[in-house]
Amino acid sequence: MSFEHLLSRAGERMQQSAIRQMGTVAASLPDVISFAPGYPAPETFAWDDYRTIADDVLSGADGTALQYGPTRGFGPLLDTLVSLLAARGITSTVEQLQLTTGSQQGLDLVARVLLDPGDVALVELPSYTGALTAFRNVMASLVGVRRDDEGIDLDHLETTVARLSAEGRRVKFLYLVPNFQNPTGALMSLARRRAVLDWALRRDLIIVEDDPYGALYFEDTTSPDETRPIKADDRDGRVIYLSSFSKTLSPAFRVAWVTAHPSLAARFETAKQALDLCTGNFDQRMVYESCRRGVLDRQVPKLRAFYQRNRTVMQEALRERLGDRITWAIPRGGFFLWASLPEGVDTMKMLDRAMRHRVIYVAGSPFFVDGSGQQTLRLAFSFVQPARLVEGVERLSTAIMEELETIPKLAAKQEG
Amino acid sequence: MSFEHLLSRAGERMQQSAIRQMGTVAASLPDVISFAPGYPAPETFAWDDYRTIADDVLSGADGTALQYGPTRGFGPLLDTLVSLLAARGITSTVEQLQLTTGSQQGLDLVARVLLDPGDVALVELPSYTGALTAFRNVMASLVGVRRDDEGIDLDHLETTVARLSAEGRRVKFLYLVPNFQNPTGALMSLARRRAVLDWALRRDLIIVEDDPYGALYFEDTTSPDETRPIKADDRDGRVIYLSSFSKTLSPAFRVAWVTAHPSLAARFETAKQALDLCTGNFDQRMVYESCRRGVLDRQVPKLRAFYQRNRTVMQEALRERLGDRITWAIPRGGFFLWASLPEGVDTMKMLDRAMRHRVIYVAGSPFFVDGSGQQTLRLAFSFVQPARLVEGVERLSTAIMEELETIPKLAAKQEG
Repeated sequence: MSFEHLLSRAGERMQQSAIRQMGTVAASLPDVISFAPGYPAPETFAWDDYRTIADDVLSGADGTALQYGPTRGFGPLLDTLVSLLAARGITSTVEQLQLTTGSQQGLDLVARVLLDPGDVALVELPSYTGALTAFRNVMASLVGVRRDDEGIDLDHLETTVARLSAEGRRVKFLYLVPNFQNPTGALMSLARRRAVLDWALRRDLIIVEDDPYGALYFEDTTSPDETRPIKADDRDGRVIYLSSFSKTLSPAFRVAWVTAHPSLAARFETAKQALDLCTGNFDQRMVYESCRRGVLDRQVPKLRAFYQRNRTVMQEALRERLGDRITWAIPRGGFFLWASLPEGVDTMKMLDRAMRHRVIYVAGSPFFVDGSGQQTLRLAFSFVQPARLVEGVERLSTAIMEELETIPKLAAKQEG
Repeated sequence: MSFEHLLSRAGERMQQSAIRQMGTVAASLPDVISFAPGYPAPETFAWDDYRTIADDVLSGADGTALQYGPTRGFGPLLDTLVSLLAARGITSTVEQLQLTTGSQQGLDLVARVLLDPGDVALVELPSYTGALTAFRNVMASLVGVRRDDEGIDLDHLETTVARLSAEGRRVKFLYLVPNFQNPTGALMSLARRRAVLDWALRRDLIIVEDDPYGALYFEDTTSPDETRPIKADDRDGRVIYLSSFSKTLSPAFRVAWVTAHPSLAARFETAKQALDLCTGNFDQRMVYESCRRGVLDRQVPKLRAFYQRNRTVMQEALRERLGDRITWAIPRGGFFLWASLPEGVDTMKMLDRAMRHRVIYVAGSPFFVDGSGQQTLRLAFSFVQPARLVEGVERLSTAIMEELETIPKLAAKQEG
């Protein structure tokens, strides 16, 4: 029995996330060290605090804690978000906020409220695959814009939009992850942030700013000022800003949020009603109480130090084992180290070899909408304990050294 | 600043849920008795059990409890669902299951994987507004089919599909809530269930069977056999079956599921990746442990008795206060009593009067895709305590009596 003839066009085309596929593969292998998923480290979670909070929330004194809740979100949590955003330089009222079931739902809301089939969403080369999938699933057209050391390449952005406009295409927004981007870990410069906001104003386009990692800057290289969101300087409400508690409290709570112009926030609320009615009230209480009781404030400095140490361990191991055979920019925050191998290496093909050495990563090409990036890969240092980080880099190095040896042979074979 | 020109066509058209709007209105009124939302009663929740379970899940012994999880769902919970479905007569493998963040997400998945703009979804007259909204939001066309005492009217179904086919329309599925339907509370007869499945086979269409209330039959009128899902007799996998823990454990956990043909379940998994990556792992553990430790099995008989008593209290109060001025079919399970008032009453207009008497309900017309149902209304007896049920019916009766008095006057005015 087949139901292919009854699928929607979007349903036919939907693609598996490359990252989650690799996670599934990795889970089925024994003793594999996985640098693939961008998971927070569970040993950092505030287990004791959460136990106490859950006990209080589940006392039964407040029946609404386990009830359906408002689509916008739990009122006191929305108020908390207003304060939390203010600390990031962002002025937001409750009317501008929409709670989401993880930031992935925020991306889906953006896609559904803004994108018609064929509309263009501009994305970085490379860009976060979860966003790419959300935009593709409404049959939007994704057009890539190059990056340089400071962030999005404004010249390429302008020529791209000029070309698309000349072709009569409808460009809706530019999607950016300015703080410790997934996958590159890169931090966009403040000057570039201001420039891209000016550009969006001139072009009358929306910026979708995704900021799950902003709080997790590494104090050895980066000051909090450098993570100032683009949204903080947004005067006319054209930046849609997404952030989340998944990387700071726990991804299991699925609590994130969007702040946007009130007219857009109202659309997100309406759209969300049909998506899941409301984000789980129990999870929202857990998060709210974690903020109110200072758990979040106590966690974040610890997390900065924790992930910075992991970053350093991975980086030193890579340098020691591989020298200049691979290159990367030092991650100044977040979860990821983005590496480039010599031209000719195909990291997607190299995965088999890596898996034989019981190590796994995410190949870079799925992050590029233009089909490039074959020689890149993403390594998450967030989730693996230091001794295993070193062991994993050793395995990866062995795989890379073997792979590099095959390249001249391949070339010779083609000549022969 | 306006961003209307950047909205998608779906985004422009999205409609607020009538039920949730009324919930918002009600929440802002002092001392209002609300029969509007289909909420479970929080005093029935297993608070003590949940506290114990949360304490164990949050011990920190299993780090994955607060981590991202597989998109399909937490493995042991999927296994539990296989058993739970077997008890309902449904054979399902894990490959046929997809966990969802509430059943609303299941409806959204169905919409996105099956419906292109303009495709037809057949729905009952009346039908659940959450489903209507999910289908409308992908710009599907909703066509209503009449019901009779036994359920969907097969003759009207056949003539409707024949007409649509002749017009070249693509009909994808029929959406049904056979057990204690929202909004009517009606139970579809077993004969009608078999007949509609045969019909779907002949017409090569899918049935989307939504069953959140099946476990909550009232033992004074109904045996469990009468709630046998259509899916239990589905031989070729053309029934997509949705169910949920929202009405039996808690809606705050947002844990529900879909079982469908493996090829469709795989599409739902892919689609869900872009919706929210995964349903919250903490919530899934809470639900899994509630099943494993027998909380669900202990809860369900209590809930049947609890809601049956509420139904009886409401019904007797209505009969006493209003006699034959309103009519309804006795609810044999679920949360709702569906009432019809005399022709000429518009329950949407009557809401203002009801609110002046500090009582609220859901007007019937939003449940009808053909614009009918003006004289109907939905009363949820699930959420209000018995003394307040009686008080609420008194207020409602006063409002209705007043409204009925205006009808001949209105008629006289039009004649004059």
